[in-house]
Amino acid sequence: MTAQIIPLRGQKGDAPAKPSLDPILALTAPGMNAVNAVILDRMQSEIPLIPALAGHLISGGGKRMRPMLTIACAELIGYQGNRHHKLAAAVEFIHTATLLHDDVVDGSDLRRGKETANIVFGNPATVLVGDFLFSRAFELMVEDGSLKVLKILAGASAIIAEGEVDQLTAQRQIETSEERYLSIIGAKTAALFCAACRIAAVVAERGEAEERALDDYGRNLGIAFQLADDAIDYDSDAHEMGKAKGDDFRDGKMTLPVILAYARGNDEERQFWRDAIAGFCTSDEDLAHAVKLIAKYDTVSATRERARHFAQRAIDAIAGFPASEARAAMGEAALFAVSRRY
Amino acid sequence: MTAQIIPLRGQKGDAPAKPSLDPILALTAPGMNAVNAVILDRMQSEIPLIPALAGHLISGGGKRMRPMLTIACAELIGYQGNRHHKLAAAVEFIHTATLLHDDVVDGSDLRRGKETANIVFGNPATVLVGDFLFSRAFELMVEDGSLKVLKILAGASAIIAEGEVDQLTAQRQIETSEERYLSIIGAKTAALFCAACRIAAVVAERGEAEERALDDYGRNLGIAFQLADDAIDYDSDAHEMGKAKGDDFRDGKMTLPVILAYARGNDEERQFWRDAIAGFCTSDEDLAHAVKLIAKYDTVSATRERARHFAQRAIDAIAGFPASEARAAMGEAALFAVSRRY
Repeated sequence: MTAQIIPLRGQKGDAPAKPSLDPILALTAPGMNAVNAVILDRMQSEIPLIPALAGHLISGGGKRMRPMLTIACAELIGYQGNRHHKLAAAVEFIHTATLLHDDVVDGSDLRRGKETANIVFGNPATVLVGDFLFSRAFELMVEDGSLKVLKILAGASAIIAEGEVDQLTAQRQIETSEERYLSIIGAKTAALFCAACRIAAVVAERGEAEERALDDYGRNLGIAFQLADDAIDYDSDAHEMGKAKGDDFRDGKMTLPVILAYARGNDEERQFWRDAIAGFCTSDEDLAHAVKLIAKYDTVSATRERARHFAQRAIDAIAGFPASEARAAMGEAALFAVSRRY
Repeated sequence: MTAQIIPLRGQKGDAPAKPSLDPILALTAPGMNAVNAVILDRMQSEIPLIPALAGHLISGGGKRMRPMLTIACAELIGYQGNRHHKLAAAVEFIHTATLLHDDVVDGSDLRRGKETANIVFGNPATVLVGDFLFSRAFELMVEDGSLKVLKILAGASAIIAEGEVDQLTAQRQIETSEERYLSIIGAKTAALFCAACRIAAVVAERGEAEERALDDYGRNLGIAFQLADDAIDYDSDAHEMGKAKGDDFRDGKMTLPVILAYARGNDEERQFWRDAIAGFCTSDEDLAHAVKLIAKYDTVSATRERARHFAQRAIDAIAGFPASEARAAMGEAALFAVSRRY
């Protein structure tokens, strides 16, 4: 496979347009309508608190990127059936369950600009509705009946949980290396991206090579996406606009902008990072100082550069498929993931 | 099927011995050794916190009743294979995951006489390791490869979560009826008992009638078991011995001893229950008063009587199987479940 130049919208020779999600949104719109119908139908329960709480998050304006990847991959390989609709809904349920549990774990109070479910409904109900959605996801997979899909998604779920525990262990540990960080985000974020992509090739029965190509696309995209997310938390533009909240900083989470700023810093700066990550500097002034140090060593840019590397690997992973609207949209989505600012 | 007199140990004509778990423990010992090996092997992870936390609960002296039921049912129907060992371990993982999440949900500090995992390791890790074990359970089922077993256990898991949410909704609601209470414990406790039993008939390919008989045994036993558990929390003997802690009372959980005491009480007593369940009376004196009112209306005995009813239905559900050591042990286990005092 060779590096692939993704045809962005606009005429050849134009300056490349700013990458956009619009092509993948258009590509997957019909499929996503079917997926959304499954999601709405299968989050119901006779216990009214369950759809109320699940709906709070599910209807809360998420981009449903993971099921969208399943749909896009199915388009890419020309799958004609509809089995992937239920499975894409299962993927979104697994993701929603992990978000609900994450918000409890992190004690978060805002997600997607709304109060989190744990704030509105309390931690107990949030944990339990996460469990419900997780079980429902497996019910959907069992209905589909593919043991191979079940294996991929059960395995991904275990890896996600391991990644989350690993992240918890690394929290407030200033000595966390870039390698360990990549291993954590590979598990907690990329595992579900790559499973979401791979299952499209499984239901279409396309064989190991196509499965692996989609898996590689998803994994690299997931890493790129998480790197970009972690960059935003320390982006000085975003801080000036009041869009970044410094949650990772206050939680003592070791993300790449901090790992690199610590590595590149002088003794005094390193002492600041040690204290901050240990939880002794959490004021707005401390956060501003952290953002300043990160700007000094340009580690948001360095993180974005790493993200672009993985986005390019994602694009190259599907370069072997014939050129198509789907392939172009998936490539542009990867570029979008790493160029978004907040 | 007719009512069945269970041959207890001891000579015919002897006064029936006190029911014991010993026969079912002896019956299932070889199988449980195999199950325990799977449990120990599959709770491992490269993230050290995972086996540490899981092991805290799993090695913490639980009776492993649910996997034991799978093994006992396999003995009852003469299954010769070993597929049920992995599946019984999956059942125990699902149970352990729900216990971990329950302890977080209830804010419990003691289980089986030990500090709970959430106290030792914190809520965040406890939620996440629960998720890990839940995923691992599905991985074990996928390895076995029976979609029917996957369907039964995914369905049971969703029902358990629904039951837990329903219990949360009923918490501090004095008007909870016996019917609703039975529906809650049917979901949160009995669903996994009946799945644990049923899957033995599935792997042995014994057909719908035997599946249903084992399902009925498990469901009724689960209800009996939970009723007996809920009785113990208000048993005056147990309170005198300092064995009951009144957790349900302080949490405002509506269990049958309270439901019946409220129904049978006079106006003044009903007012006490309303205040207590609403959370306004949680002192040791209040608990002592609650235990006194429950003794006055004998609702611990009434709850035990209900438990015996379901235990008898469990026994009758397997009465159609030929008499055997397994059938006798399973019957005695049902009687034991409802006769234990603390």
